[in-house]
Amino acid sequence: MKSTILKPLCLSLAMVSSSAVLAVDSEPTAPRNVILIVGDGMDDHQITIARNYLAGSRGKINLDEMALRSSVQVLTVDDKDPSRPLYVADSANSATSMATGEITSRGRIGTSAKYDQDLVSIVDLAKQAGLKAGIVTTANITDATPSSFVAKISQRECENPEMMVDALIYKRKPVDCSQDVKAKGGPGSISEQLAASNVDVLLGGGMQHFSKQAEGSSKTVLEQAKESGFYIADNASDMKSAPADKKLLGLFAEGNLPERMAYEGEREAEQPDPSMLNYLHKYLGSVEMPDTVKCESNAAFGDTPELREMTSVALNRLSEKNDKGFFLMVESASIDKASHQRRACGQIGELQQLTEALDVALEFAEKHENTLVLVTADHGQAAQLMPDTSLFKAFDLPAYSPGYVARVETPEGVIMAVNYATNGLFAEEHTGVNVPLFANKEGVGKVPTMLTQPEIFNVMVSYLNLK
Amino acid sequence: MKSTILKPLCLSLAMVSSSAVLAVDSEPTAPRNVILIVGDGMDDHQITIARNYLAGSRGKINLDEMALRSSVQVLTVDDKDPSRPLYVADSANSATSMATGEITSRGRIGTSAKYDQDLVSIVDLAKQAGLKAGIVTTANITDATPSSFVAKISQRECENPEMMVDALIYKRKPVDCSQDVKAKGGPGSISEQLAASNVDVLLGGGMQHFSKQAEGSSKTVLEQAKESGFYIADNASDMKSAPADKKLLGLFAEGNLPERMAYEGEREAEQPDPSMLNYLHKYLGSVEMPDTVKCESNAAFGDTPELREMTSVALNRLSEKNDKGFFLMVESASIDKASHQRRACGQIGELQQLTEALDVALEFAEKHENTLVLVTADHGQAAQLMPDTSLFKAFDLPAYSPGYVARVETPEGVIMAVNYATNGLFAEEHTGVNVPLFANKEGVGKVPTMLTQPEIFNVMVSYLNLK
Ligand SMILES: [Zn+2]
Ligand SMILES: [Zn+2]
Repeated sequence: MKSTILKPLCLSLAMVSSSAVLAVDSEPTAPRNVILIVGDGMDDHQITIARNYLAGSRGKINLDEMALRSSVQVLTVDDKDPSRPLYVADSANSATSMATGEITSRGRIGTSAKYDQDLVSIVDLAKQAGLKAGIVTTANITDATPSSFVAKISQRECENPEMMVDALIYKRKPVDCSQDVKAKGGPGSISEQLAASNVDVLLGGGMQHFSKQAEGSSKTVLEQAKESGFYIADNASDMKSAPADKKLLGLFAEGNLPERMAYEGEREAEQPDPSMLNYLHKYLGSVEMPDTVKCESNAAFGDTPELREMTSVALNRLSEKNDKGFFLMVESASIDKASHQRRACGQIGELQQLTEALDVALEFAEKHENTLVLVTADHGQAAQLMPDTSLFKAFDLPAYSPGYVARVETPEGVIMAVNYATNGLFAEEHTGVNVPLFANKEGVGKVPTMLTQPEIFNVMVSYLNLK
Repeated sequence: MKSTILKPLCLSLAMVSSSAVLAVDSEPTAPRNVILIVGDGMDDHQITIARNYLAGSRGKINLDEMALRSSVQVLTVDDKDPSRPLYVADSANSATSMATGEITSRGRIGTSAKYDQDLVSIVDLAKQAGLKAGIVTTANITDATPSSFVAKISQRECENPEMMVDALIYKRKPVDCSQDVKAKGGPGSISEQLAASNVDVLLGGGMQHFSKQAEGSSKTVLEQAKESGFYIADNASDMKSAPADKKLLGLFAEGNLPERMAYEGEREAEQPDPSMLNYLHKYLGSVEMPDTVKCESNAAFGDTPELREMTSVALNRLSEKNDKGFFLMVESASIDKASHQRRACGQIGELQQLTEALDVALEFAEKHENTLVLVTADHGQAAQLMPDTSLFKAFDLPAYSPGYVARVETPEGVIMAVNYATNGLFAEEHTGVNVPLFANKEGVGKVPTMLTQPEIFNVMVSYLNLK
């Protein structure tokens, strides 16, 4: 970071050019709240795949019944030359766009491309104005999406004090946030920044990043969080009974929370297996497709708090005795994480968790007027819903995907083929597709039918009367 | 076909359950018109790819400014067991859904799955009620999308009399529509059905299917079309000067109309080229990516009528001296066809043609009240907008797509990587993703935020007061 604060200059301009102009009420009314639900990687393929499994191809899930549907242009730029757009984002730059209204480069958390300046987030503005704020996620709470709403750091991987200087991820990827260490007057790692923050509710995974010794201290980051006024919960019942007069930091796993659903029998997405003859020419020989797979409950999920439970606790704490309103971000993180690693069942279970959290949010909004509920994704993902039987079957040639395929048996008794074919290494890529955005009726007339990702910040800030 | 006509029974039910209820005007007003624009294969990836090229990543195209955005569930079923859904459609079944309100199986044109019953289309209903009707496409006019609005036949490939009995496509794919031959009391091939139809305007490609000898006749199908009252045009000026008192059949190419844009230098999408070492293990060695490509005007396009010109002619003819209204379907077909064959520039130029036709339609709707303009896609396509530089570049491993990649240089000076990786053979697959639907302001309150593809028929029929 550099501590010069960039004002959200784009705000007034964007408001003029979009239909998202706020009608300011003059009479006293209920406080205004924003609940932003982010499905990480939740593009339309992901939604269709999950719907086919959860509700059937003709069924509807709650996303489908939202009052407003819009689409979001995901924008990112080259860190070396921020005037140069790039067409595919990551969660760091895209969450930063939603959190701050600024376009930045991949990997950055709340900081500007190239110049590394700290950006003002909606959480900063909300807390300054006396509103409450909360962050809920199924990932490490220090992960890119949740942390972009609170922290300011140049690289998303600097999640704890040990990752700040000359670190290596998986012994390969170099990471260095040395300009942000406290010794240089910086704010320290992401976990240290969260521990020192005034966010009212922080719920998710990532205990591993808080059990480390804090920079320049004999204490752990977790102990620092306690000192700064957080009550620490590491299980659902502690989370629910946490004292109302404290900030709440809930950490329910060492890393990301487990996914709810998994392939039965620990299967994986597999590559179709062509015959020897097919290596000679693609029109020759035959191909064996992977066996079909079923989804089952993931045993590792155990008593992990569900996303809806965390959302419910957050909403209770943020709304109680609060006449100023709040901002809450809820992330269903493993739609992306499962999709990177070709776990179709993981994607589906995680998207199901998002729909349940949305039910909780919509129920809250029914009871509390002036609550804007937005659901969107940060970027697209590689998973594609493709034909299990090739469109070209009648040509009687060995037709198959060159990537990995999960042939999932759905409850309606049909095989759903999910294709992963952007990168043969350990993880699939993101895609650059526009992503959907949904709003409850409070968003009608305030959210245009298409907007850029930074304009989501403008809509929310405007709704909450934050300037 | 079997001649028992299936009533669109779902209509009343669907209207009750959706918000697409029509407010019937009691006073005399301008006639009601529907313009349905179909981008074949135009999912959100296609739109994003085209927008990045045509308007820049931060720019907008006219689709983005439409008053209403919705999403469409694309439904198809197994032909052997129509109670069994399938998750990926083709243009035949999906166009039939939009044209008739019925879900059918892949490959079928205006006929029901398994039972092969003729389905009533919106063109049938419109003509029965005294409205005019037109079909415009950049494909063969006998292709799946245009013909589904008019013809009834069991297989999409039966486009002309020679394809009706024991035919083979590319010497491999067997096609047989013998139950539909005129000798058995059937309606004959698709071109014969179009030639005998009462559709007021038919514009597109496909002269090859009309120059064949008609079944049981010494005449060509084209001569039969003339006898049934069509004026035949084979170039733009003939199309524009066609007599007003005749039906118009314009056929501007032997097959599909050429695409407007092509890769410079007759390049193709290519497979990344890994080093020998990489064949031993995916973490070893290196990979050479295909050279970047530029798009240029396709020389073969020549003086082919543009989609906007055909749309304009159709609108003039359908609206002139017409107090009953009309239905017009306009298809931009080669978004799909180019995408099957990995021609990113072809996709972009064709989507540009769609936006130009939409401009013509919107201008018409501005001048003619009661004109509902809908734009949608029939199904998703394989093309994916993926990162040109892997998200995992810092790990310094050979990261590449296992499929074909077009690395397109965009006018804003950035490389846009389009990935094709669903099938290594001659053509990529469709995908099962939900597709977007856009409407002008006339659609607001009549089109829900999500609907099934057959419900598009309901919306249009209801708007036109056809029962
Ligand atoms: Zn990701
Ligand atoms: Zn196709």
